[in-house]
Amino acid sequence: MELLKRRILECGRCFDGGILKVDSFINHQMDPDLMSNIGKEFAERYKDAGVNKIVTIEASGIAPAIMAGAIMHLPVVFVKKKQPKTMENMLTTTVHSFTKDRDYTVCISGDYLTADDRILIIDDFLAYGNAAFGILDLANKAGATVVGFGFIIEKSFQNGGTKLRDLGYRVESLAEIASLDNCTIVLK
Amino acid sequence: MELLKRRILECGRCFDGGILKVDSFINHQMDPDLMSNIGKEFAERYKDAGVNKIVTIEASGIAPAIMAGAIMHLPVVFVKKKQPKTMENMLTTTVHSFTKDRDYTVCISGDYLTADDRILIIDDFLAYGNAAFGILDLANKAGATVVGFGFIIEKSFQNGGTKLRDLGYRVESLAEIASLDNCTIVLK
Repeated sequence: MELLKRRILECGRCFDGGILKVDSFINHQMDPDLMSNIGKEFAERYKDAGVNKIVTIEASGIAPAIMAGAIMHLPVVFVKKKQPKTMENMLTTTVHSFTKDRDYTVCISGDYLTADDRILIIDDFLAYGNAAFGILDLANKAGATVVGFGFIIEKSFQNGGTKLRDLGYRVESLAEIASLDNCTIVLK
Repeated sequence: MELLKRRILECGRCFDGGILKVDSFINHQMDPDLMSNIGKEFAERYKDAGVNKIVTIEASGIAPAIMAGAIMHLPVVFVKKKQPKTMENMLTTTVHSFTKDRDYTVCISGDYLTADDRILIIDDFLAYGNAAFGILDLANKAGATVVGFGFIIEKSFQNGGTKLRDLGYRVESLAEIASLDNCTIVLK
């Protein structure tokens, strides 16, 4: 997706420790026109895959997921990082955050993720795959089928993508970062 | 917005303590077609108001905000409930959550909310107005002008709407709930 790659090179910023900041257009301030194109791209790549629902995780996954959902006319469910008192039929799992160096419990209602579902999992970033494996665990607990994953940006030098593909999952990443060494963005 | 009101009456559920659950179509599972119509309605109501940016708060405000932003072709910034280590020029404020009965600190980067901005603040619910006043405080700290607010659902029997309107703010709520007494949804 050339539009996205150009934007990452122009507006993305690197920090020590393999951190790529895209908060001017993806995960703090968001460019809705770009997000709309991102949604279209996911919809196009998964159009014949028999997906009936999109699942994402709050907060930065919501915008690309709802954009894809609007084009595919499919419901979108977001995994929550806090457990609401009123959630019924709650499924939970633990996710480790490398950025924040702590474990947290995430949840989804089993009312909205069931054994009848064939889901596309969308998120903004794929790095080590912790959030992705969390959603995968929730899908397994619900008995849902995971058709594939869609990420805006994959850091290919971290191993989340390799792990998911080695397990046989389809992974579509709209931009892949080969390296952030010396604070320089190198696309794959 | 008749489509939304009908959906609230059909799919919304009441719980003791003035709680309205709309998690099957708005704030856990989301209906992107409805969300798209919600975005259109906000865009229509604020089309001549000179808005240059939309501000919301994670997580449930993101979907309606990005949909409005896509139609208005305006950037959307979401206020964060955790302070990222890499955020620069951070503005913070404290928000009290009635549902969770605790205070939490929210933040926005002053890089994306400035004295040049004329903002529309969008969120899913207006109840006591705590989140809204938090965003208002951030806008004041940034020197931004608040053009108005847009909420999907306003609980008119709680006092957030009255407080905002008494201060002279324009508040557009797409559905207003007059009462949830006896666990019955009564629209205004």
